[in-house]
Amino acid sequence: MVDLQELEKIKRLKYKYQRCLDLHLWDELEECFVPEATSSYGDGQYTFGSRDEILNFLKQAMGRPSSMSSHHVHHPEIDIDGERATGVWALEDYVVDQEAGNTIHGAAYYHDQYVKVDGEWKIKHTGYMRAYEERVERRNNPHIELTVGWGAGE
Amino acid sequence: MVDLQELEKIKRLKYKYQRCLDLHLWDELEECFVPEATSSYGDGQYTFGSRDEILNFLKQAMGRPSSMSSHHVHHPEIDIDGERATGVWALEDYVVDQEAGNTIHGAAYYHDQYVKVDGEWKIKHTGYMRAYEERVERRNNPHIELTVGWGAGE
Amino acid sequence: MVDLQELEKIKRLKYKYQRCLDLHLWDELEECFVPEATSSYGDGQYTFGSRDEILNFLKQAMGRPSSMSSHHVHHPEIDIDGERATGVWALEDYVVDQEAGNTIHGAAYYHDQYVKVDGEWKIKHTGYMRAYEERVERRNNPHIELTVGWGAGE
Repeated sequence: MVDLQELEKIKRLKYKYQRCLDLHLWDELEECFVPEATSSYGDGQYTFGSRDEILNFLKQAMGRPSSMSSHHVHHPEIDIDGERATGVWALEDYVVDQEAGNTIHGAAYYHDQYVKVDGEWKIKHTGYMRAYEERVERRNNPHIELTVGWGAGE
Repeated sequence: MVDLQELEKIKRLKYKYQRCLDLHLWDELEECFVPEATSSYGDGQYTFGSRDEILNFLKQAMGRPSSMSSHHVHHPEIDIDGERATGVWALEDYVVDQEAGNTIHGAAYYHDQYVKVDGEWKIKHTGYMRAYEERVERRNNPHIELTVGWGAGE
Repeated sequence: MVDLQELEKIKRLKYKYQRCLDLHLWDELEECFVPEATSSYGDGQYTFGSRDEILNFLKQAMGRPSSMSSHHVHHPEIDIDGERATGVWALEDYVVDQEAGNTIHGAAYYHDQYVKVDGEWKIKHTGYMRAYEERVERRNNPHIELTVGWGAGE
């Protein structure tokens, strides 16, 4: 029997993480991690050893006003063992960078670890392996135009 | 403790709404709303004060045979309080318009309100804020071709 | 009352299927089906009458190293009746083919049938109807470049 109450809490944690990342809600994002959390984004290219390092990276990578993104996760395969859990998730990400004049679009599989601390689930480790990633040039491209968002229609 | 039975019912309501919108099942879509439902789509640009007004708008905006769409919702953060509930959802939408010769693609966050009437959950309010939206021109674009759908291959 | 434990098992089956398809895990994918499973992918264009036929098709269609894909499913509307169940799912698929120099992108609705055999849910029938499908040419397209994946950056 799966503990469906705990499962729902872990899903909510992940959804909060994704929402705070895309809406640039850094204080709320910080609540998702234990202080000693680790990450290995992008096939281990972006590896960090603490919550502070992870937050700093995410703010730099995603936090500019010219960056608008959707990081959507799907297909949760979550296994719970007491106060520890693992989660596999499919990711599709789409990052529109107005300054760079391009969009990065890709897919990946997340492998997460969660831990329950004082009754609340937190991210202990997060990271993903890329399936593919592509860059779409918006600059000098007559076929695509940003219509809503920072600098839209310029 | 979350009431997981009620949570599942609210998710099913939302999934029905999205399916009926993309498959143009207007009678079934109507069942999703209370008569006094309100909406504020597109950052409040499309605000309506009744189920009939919402349905009329959706039929006009999406109902043409030349319009083919996917409105996919993710990351449900649903809070239930008796016979009322709120829901936050991530949206990715993709609307291929053959007549206009373009595609509108974007991401947003929904903020919904639900109410239970005679034992069934209904949408009381729905609306979303855009993260970004872009228009891809298909007309005179040698790099993209519709292969399935109305007018495919023309 | 929905049996939420069985519901979770059926979702996990579907998520395993999608993951194994995109990660080319053919042995694990085979576990998802009963031997007499049938399929009708692509509006019935790809109809098969056994697990072996389905697997052969999927390996040929998706198994080349030059093919990288994400098949993401959303909006589960699952109805369980004892040891049988039906499932409706929204699909978004994105298949990057390096050899062909293009990407196929589309949306569809799945209609599945599941059956419980020796305590485990399996796919008895799967198939989808297309909403739309488009082909994006990557070859001779200055606006798009594969940056991660087989042959990236070439």
